[in-house]
Amino acid sequence: MNYSPRRLDALRQALEQKKADGIIVSNPHNVRYLSGYTGDDSALLITRDGGYFYTDFRYTEQAAKEIRGLKLVQRKKSLFNAIAKTVAKRRMKKVLFESASVTFQQYQELTQAVPRSRLVPNWGAVANIRMVKDEGEIRAIQAAARVAETGFRRFRGMVKTGLDERVMANGLDFRMRALGAECPAFEIIVAVRERASQPHARPTRRILRKGEPVLVDWGARKDFYNSDLTRVLFTDRIPRTIRRVYEIVREAQRLAIAAVGPEVPAKQVDRAARQYIRKHGFGKQFGHGVGHGVGLEVHELPTINASSRHILKPGMVFTVEPGIYLPGVGGVRIEDMVLVTPNGCEVLTALPKAIDEMVVPV
Amino acid sequence: MNYSPRRLDALRQALEQKKADGIIVSNPHNVRYLSGYTGDDSALLITRDGGYFYTDFRYTEQAAKEIRGLKLVQRKKSLFNAIAKTVAKRRMKKVLFESASVTFQQYQELTQAVPRSRLVPNWGAVANIRMVKDEGEIRAIQAAARVAETGFRRFRGMVKTGLDERVMANGLDFRMRALGAECPAFEIIVAVRERASQPHARPTRRILRKGEPVLVDWGARKDFYNSDLTRVLFTDRIPRTIRRVYEIVREAQRLAIAAVGPEVPAKQVDRAARQYIRKHGFGKQFGHGVGHGVGLEVHELPTINASSRHILKPGMVFTVEPGIYLPGVGGVRIEDMVLVTPNGCEVLTALPKAIDEMVVPV
Repeated sequence: MNYSPRRLDALRQALEQKKADGIIVSNPHNVRYLSGYTGDDSALLITRDGGYFYTDFRYTEQAAKEIRGLKLVQRKKSLFNAIAKTVAKRRMKKVLFESASVTFQQYQELTQAVPRSRLVPNWGAVANIRMVKDEGEIRAIQAAARVAETGFRRFRGMVKTGLDERVMANGLDFRMRALGAECPAFEIIVAVRERASQPHARPTRRILRKGEPVLVDWGARKDFYNSDLTRVLFTDRIPRTIRRVYEIVREAQRLAIAAVGPEVPAKQVDRAARQYIRKHGFGKQFGHGVGHGVGLEVHELPTINASSRHILKPGMVFTVEPGIYLPGVGGVRIEDMVLVTPNGCEVLTALPKAIDEMVVPV
Repeated sequence: MNYSPRRLDALRQALEQKKADGIIVSNPHNVRYLSGYTGDDSALLITRDGGYFYTDFRYTEQAAKEIRGLKLVQRKKSLFNAIAKTVAKRRMKKVLFESASVTFQQYQELTQAVPRSRLVPNWGAVANIRMVKDEGEIRAIQAAARVAETGFRRFRGMVKTGLDERVMANGLDFRMRALGAECPAFEIIVAVRERASQPHARPTRRILRKGEPVLVDWGARKDFYNSDLTRVLFTDRIPRTIRRVYEIVREAQRLAIAAVGPEVPAKQVDRAARQYIRKHGFGKQFGHGVGHGVGLEVHELPTINASSRHILKPGMVFTVEPGIYLPGVGGVRIEDMVLVTPNGCEVLTALPKAIDEMVVPV
C-alpha cells in the first residue's frame, strides 16, 4: 500500500480552516489512504497534532506492522465507543465526522457518549484530498490499468460463439489475477447483444452467437488501486444500427477527452460528449454522466457530469465513458481513463477501439 | 434469486406491531430479500397495504423484469429524495428507517424533506425475519456449501510447497467459479504458519515451505447466498504445538455443535467451546465469538457469542468456528456450517477434519 504523510498534513490544514479539534474517519478507503493500513473494521481520529487508530483483536497485529505516526488503540466494545472515550478524555470541543459513512446508529451512539462535544457532519474533507492523486497513487493506478489491458488482450483470444456471459467474465477475471490483480475492480460486466442496453448488466448464462456484439466493462484492483475500462467486441458481422451508434459514441469520447485539461470545469467534459450525442438524436439514450474519478474506489471524485462543480486539476484521474443504450436492441459504451497533466491530459489506457479492430474471429 | 411473498407479509406484521405506516428499506441485502431484485442502488418503501421500489435509469429495465408486487419508481434525484416524495404524498405519519444502513447524510435529507412525518430509527425488522431461513434459502445455502466443498477438494490437489498464499487463494477462487460460484463469499484467507495467528490475514507472496501448516478460510457465493468454512492443511510433519492446539479446537467445535438445538440460547453454544478451550489454558487466545449467521450476507444474525441474546430456532443457519491464535507461532480454526432443525441440528458441511487427514503430500 503506497502512503504519504503529506496526506495527514493536508487533512490537518482542513481541520485548521474549519476550526475543528479533530475528525473521525470511518470510511474504510479513507482509513487506508491516511494510515497505510490494509485491513478492515478500523477507524481513525485525526487531531491537530496527532492521531489515533482504532481496531480490534483480529487486526491488532497487522495494524501494528502497517500504520505510522498514529497511536494504536485496541477497542473492547464498538469502534465508536472507543473513539468517544478519546474525544471525552481529550476534551475535544468540535469534532467532524464523515456524514456519508457514519450510520444514523453510530451517530446516536457517539452523541450520547460525548454530550459535551460538538459533532459536526462533514462531507468531503478526505475525498477532496483524495481527488488529486500523488505520485505513488498514479503509479498504482497505472499498474492496475496495465493488468486490466493485458488481461483483456489475452481474454480476446478466448471470446468465441457458444460461450456464455459468465464463462467469459470468469475467463477475464482469471487472466487478470494471473497477471497480479488482487481481484477485479468490480463485478465484471459481459453483456451480449440486447443485454448491453442495461448499463450495469450482471453476467448470466446467455450464450454469445454469431453476429452478436458483446459489451465488456471491467477493471483490475492491484495494491488497492483500481482501473475501469469498457470495450465492445463483435463476432463476425457488425449490426448496422450498432455500427452507427458506435461511431457516434467514439467521436463523443474523442471530443470529451480533447476537452480535458487543468482549470477546465468538469461539466465541460460532459458537455463535449453530450452535445455531440444529442445532435445525432440519441440524447435520451445517454442517461449517465460521462465519467467518474478512479482511485482507491472505482467511483470517487471528481464527478464528471452535467451538474458537476469540480474544476479539473493536474493529478486527477477519471474515466471518460459515453454510451448509447437502446432497450431490446443493445448498447455501446467506450471507456478509457485519463490523467489531468499540467498541459492537458494523458490517456492512461491504450487498447484498440477502432470499430473494425473490435471483431473477433468466430 | 429465490423469493417468497411471505417475507413481505412478515414485515407488514412487524409494521402493525410497531404501529408504523411504513418502513424504508435501504440495506441492499434486505432490498434483494424482499423484492427478488438482483441489481444495486435501489431501495424500498413497504407500506401496510403495498410497497414501492426505487431505482434509476441504469436498473429500470432489470427491475421491471425481476420485482413482483411492488410499484416501480424511476428516481430522478437521490433515492431518499424519491422516497420522501412518496411519504409526503401519501401523508404517512410514522415511518421506520434502517438506522444501521441509513447514513447521517441520508437521514438529514429525509427529515428535511418530510417535516410532517415521524421518522423512527429501526434496527432488525428485516434482519430478524432473515435470521430464520425459508426452504428456498436453505437450498441456496446448501448449493453454496457444495460448491465451496468441491472446490476445496480440487484445490487440495494443487497445494504444495513453493506456492505462495496468493497463488493458492487464486487457485481456490478459480475452482469455485468453474463449479458455478458467482465469486468467493469473501476474500479468501490463505495463511501460512505464523500468518495464521491473524484471524483475518490477507493472502500475500509468503511461500509455503515443507513442514508448515496453512490455514484456509473460504466460501462461495451462489445465487446470492453464501457459505463459509475453515480448514488447516499440513505439509509433511505437523508441528507439536499446533497438533495439541488443533485437537483442542476440534473437540471444542464438537462440543459446540453438540449444544445446538431449537430453543437453546445461542450463548450456550459459544460457552460449550469457550469453556473447553479455557480449561486447556488458551482462553485468551480465542478472542472472537464462536460463530455467526450466514445467508445473503456472510455475517448476519444470529450472533453466536458470549453476550448473544438470540434463542436458536429451526431454520437458522450459522457457523461454528472456534480458534486458537498464537502470535509469531500460528493459529488453528475449524469452521463448519450448521442448520437448526426441529430435533437438533444438521451439519451442512462435511469435509474431513481429523488431523491426520489434513496432511497433503509435498
